[in-house]
Amino acid sequence: MSSTHHRAQRVRRRLEGVDALLVSDLTNVRWLTGFTGSNGWLVLAPDELVLVTDGRYGEQAAGEMAAAGVEGRVAVGLTGAATLDHITAECARFARLGFEAAHVSYQQYTAYQQALSAQLVPLTGVVESERRTKDEAEIELMARACSVADSALAEVAPRLGDGLTEAQARNLLEIRMRELGASGPSYETIVASGPVNAALPHHRPTDTLIESGHTVIVDVGALVGGYHSDMTRSFVVGEPSALQRELYDVVLHPQRAGLAAVQPGIRASDLDAVCRDVIAAAGYGEWFTHGTGHGVGLLIHEDPYVNRAAELTLQVGDVVTVEPGAYRGGFGGFRVEDLVVVTTDGCRVLTNSPKDSPCLPSPPTN
Amino acid sequence: MSSTHHRAQRVRRRLEGVDALLVSDLTNVRWLTGFTGSNGWLVLAPDELVLVTDGRYGEQAAGEMAAAGVEGRVAVGLTGAATLDHITAECARFARLGFEAAHVSYQQYTAYQQALSAQLVPLTGVVESERRTKDEAEIELMARACSVADSALAEVAPRLGDGLTEAQARNLLEIRMRELGASGPSYETIVASGPVNAALPHHRPTDTLIESGHTVIVDVGALVGGYHSDMTRSFVVGEPSALQRELYDVVLHPQRAGLAAVQPGIRASDLDAVCRDVIAAAGYGEWFTHGTGHGVGLLIHEDPYVNRAAELTLQVGDVVTVEPGAYRGGFGGFRVEDLVVVTTDGCRVLTNSPKDSPCLPSPPTN
Repeated sequence: MSSTHHRAQRVRRRLEGVDALLVSDLTNVRWLTGFTGSNGWLVLAPDELVLVTDGRYGEQAAGEMAAAGVEGRVAVGLTGAATLDHITAECARFARLGFEAAHVSYQQYTAYQQALSAQLVPLTGVVESERRTKDEAEIELMARACSVADSALAEVAPRLGDGLTEAQARNLLEIRMRELGASGPSYETIVASGPVNAALPHHRPTDTLIESGHTVIVDVGALVGGYHSDMTRSFVVGEPSALQRELYDVVLHPQRAGLAAVQPGIRASDLDAVCRDVIAAAGYGEWFTHGTGHGVGLLIHEDPYVNRAAELTLQVGDVVTVEPGAYRGGFGGFRVEDLVVVTTDGCRVLTNSPKDSPCLPSPPTN
Repeated sequence: MSSTHHRAQRVRRRLEGVDALLVSDLTNVRWLTGFTGSNGWLVLAPDELVLVTDGRYGEQAAGEMAAAGVEGRVAVGLTGAATLDHITAECARFARLGFEAAHVSYQQYTAYQQALSAQLVPLTGVVESERRTKDEAEIELMARACSVADSALAEVAPRLGDGLTEAQARNLLEIRMRELGASGPSYETIVASGPVNAALPHHRPTDTLIESGHTVIVDVGALVGGYHSDMTRSFVVGEPSALQRELYDVVLHPQRAGLAAVQPGIRASDLDAVCRDVIAAAGYGEWFTHGTGHGVGLLIHEDPYVNRAAELTLQVGDVVTVEPGAYRGGFGGFRVEDLVVVTTDGCRVLTNSPKDSPCLPSPPTN
């Protein structure tokens, strides 16, 4: 049974000083209603939900709301102006209307100011504050997405030294994830190999051949039911050198320390510091050029972010990555990343691919 | 040879009343610099380009700008606050700074207001006004993307009646596009079949079996070098009924009329009317529930949009879709869509899949 129909009420309890909330972020609209179209606004009133969309999505919106067990009306505008007219009409009875300041452009804001009679009140993170807490159904979808990526990687990783290019390895991973039930990759799969490409944390796969002696970073996730998974494993093709073994542990140790530190009540910036301090103590602090992690859900990157500047505190139901890395041009790089859900006594790790060693694994035996 | 390095100068010529432009839309940043990361701002000054990004992308940004033949500096901030500090420092010498009002959130705007010394001037569509005009290199990439989708559809369409589900047909299309050189699908491939699903213009593929007697809409495009293709073909599995044949022509005729009407100087709203009037004259105006088309490039949907409310006029170098459709719950639907580039004497059609008949094609003979 879907829990979607409770979500609007959870958000309503957070609203203070406004009569209603105009939800314009499509991910927030989806989370509240089940609607998956590319154009829509939700008027979240005290007594009802009204989804405003365009002609492409009228039937779909009604169907998806019903399937999610959400009661609401759908208003369809055939042009952008007609859509704004609908929003204006639906909001006419409110004196103070909250809007999503992080998701409404300056241009949209000025259009709302001209069209709407209500006083516009900028709000940030209202829906996100609830959306970050995943319920059982959401965690189940994310665990399935993680399992799909685990299985695909178990099949493809042993083949990384078989003369594949980065792009070919990516294709194999993405095809297998689809065959295993994913609706697609969770993001552009990263396969980064060698002293140049693997030194770029967010390298896009190329026709570079994956060669013996090279480091390879594989960052792969699946999309299941709209929910994302996220995982990175790193390898060396052939026998790792002493430096490669050392650097791998320089990344794996803080990653394990990070996982051990995840619990409700830890500040996200403190979790970041746990990983960062271990790498710095090993003498490689400057090789870790990004944050420790981020929330994952209907978006691949969402609250709570885990970095030096992160202000949120982890709480039960947060789903976050723990992904320290070390990169240097001429060497290449390593990153190890797991996806975890925060539980009352620590965390549950959703990604289960082996990570003890940088050696390429053997093929799975079924 | 890349033409990217001319683009900043094209935009500079459009700037009036400001000393510089802060480009925050990532697609605009990419078009101006070649940078493909997920976080970046470009300070487009009269005398230089400065790309501000975070630690994940420092090396990548410098490399991609060099590869695109673009001269510029890269400034790397390790946190969001540090990034804003860089933007502030780089813009300190400007009295009036343009910003992209359609791409800067209300929240970002207030942060800029507090941090930046310059007067902020909201601008809309400055970069887009140049970006809509595709150069030869861009058109070549889009033609290749169209060719990939044509080839994939030629292989998969004959199999639509072979007991595939919508999702399986989608998987086959996306796998073949990858194998044919696409970096991925251009958007979520649509395979919509039967009286319920094909009545939804933007249906997402499900495990629904594609059955004999059903209409099937396949909307498929490839991504090549960052550029998108977009094409729709519609079919009937088995022998079409008289009503299905009639409705197919109700869609094909306005689509052809639309293609014939594309030329520099036509208002986009008038092009929309060409298609809409033909469908309305056939008595099915209410079955056409969306706009006639949209621009395509680094984004799958961009200016110039082609619908009732569209205000732009087509010009040479615009790349747009022409895609009327007709949908009705209980019947299903048809859509026929081509991608064209506007030329001095009309247009060049980039998508070449057959469309004369709704019957499933024969497999390609190689």
